[in-house]
Amino acid sequence: MDKFAKTDFYIMDAIKKRWSPRSFNTDKAKDETIKSEEKIQRIFEAARWAPSAYNAQPWRFIIGFRNDDTHKIIQRTLVDKNKSWAKDAFALIIAIAKNTLDDNVTPNPTALYDLGQSVANMSLQATAEKLHMHQMAGFSAEEAIKLLEIPDGYTPVTAIALGYRDSAFRLPHNLRTIELTERERHPSRDFVFVKKFGEKTDLLKKAILYYMED
Amino acid sequence: MDKFAKTDFYIMDAIKKRWSPRSFNTDKAKDETIKSEEKIQRIFEAARWAPSAYNAQPWRFIIGFRNDDTHKIIQRTLVDKNKSWAKDAFALIIAIAKNTLDDNVTPNPTALYDLGQSVANMSLQATAEKLHMHQMAGFSAEEAIKLLEIPDGYTPVTAIALGYRDSAFRLPHNLRTIELTERERHPSRDFVFVKKFGEKTDLLKKAILYYMED
Repeated sequence: MDKFAKTDFYIMDAIKKRWSPRSFNTDKAKDETIKSEEKIQRIFEAARWAPSAYNAQPWRFIIGFRNDDTHKIIQRTLVDKNKSWAKDAFALIIAIAKNTLDDNVTPNPTALYDLGQSVANMSLQATAEKLHMHQMAGFSAEEAIKLLEIPDGYTPVTAIALGYRDSAFRLPHNLRTIELTERERHPSRDFVFVKKFGEKTDLLKKAILYYMED
Repeated sequence: MDKFAKTDFYIMDAIKKRWSPRSFNTDKAKDETIKSEEKIQRIFEAARWAPSAYNAQPWRFIIGFRNDDTHKIIQRTLVDKNKSWAKDAFALIIAIAKNTLDDNVTPNPTALYDLGQSVANMSLQATAEKLHMHQMAGFSAEEAIKLLEIPDGYTPVTAIALGYRDSAFRLPHNLRTIELTERERHPSRDFVFVKKFGEKTDLLKKAILYYMED
């Protein structure tokens, strides 16, 4: 089962197909393909080429792989409802913003924003690799700072599960229902304005779709 | 001239080809193709399908088109060094974060981060449409709030120029040099850690590239 976005307008494949599952595959043979095909390298290469203000590149990541200590540490930082499923992910990652510019003093007002751009690139590259990512705000930044020795001036923002997804039927009932629920978003007309804030535009009225759902 | 990223590992086309030019095309016939081909609609559709914490979708945009009042207003908010070239962009956009969750009270700690993810999607969809985006931190959020009637609880984060790019030789000398300079990033080994913050991994040593530069 895939949950392709039911889009109002045609968009690129990776964006249409990206979603955040909770059921991750633990098959060791599949794990090996991630390593042998350099999927991890390519995902971080995608992160690398995001734009950022002053080209400051205010993104840092700490990654652990299933069964290693870092994976276990990141599991410990998660809230309980995430712990239950995220333990199966091939990799767990903490995404960290550098709060200052290169002088290590001047605050970088777009550090979080640029970290988000970098992770968005990662998530689309992961989709292109037939992997899935699930970002979580539900983790303890304080625990991550302590356990992973993250220094002053850096802010852990999300924890990320990464791997091949698996069947929704491996999940307990409550999570299975979420896993099978269709993805929803406000239409673009509701968040894109002209002239001033709040002023909608007919430009974004839903068109008659000229492509077939795949 | 295109400035494809000189990548250490193979990545998807849209990420490789995305960059932020300053020379934008002002040909009216080309403008028409943007409208007739629904490129604007698709770019905001890409923004729409970004992930966000609690699916809060904390992104708002105000768009102006060359020669309309909103475009002129957004130009006024830019710092001088951006004004000089951004005036030619087909569209100027203010990207705005909603600071609170749906209850309009609880602060949303990932608002900026999720706005960044949404804009990253836009920039890749724009690349797929053969358009370019150039995000600017160099603008006055205060002016934007006043002139575009952005209410309390919302933060303008970047101004964005969008359009077809044009030759670097249309730019004055100083900007032309920047336009022709190769894109640079720290290698992923420098920002991806294992075990703890700062600990590098051989996993991300540059491989021998197995593809031809296109």
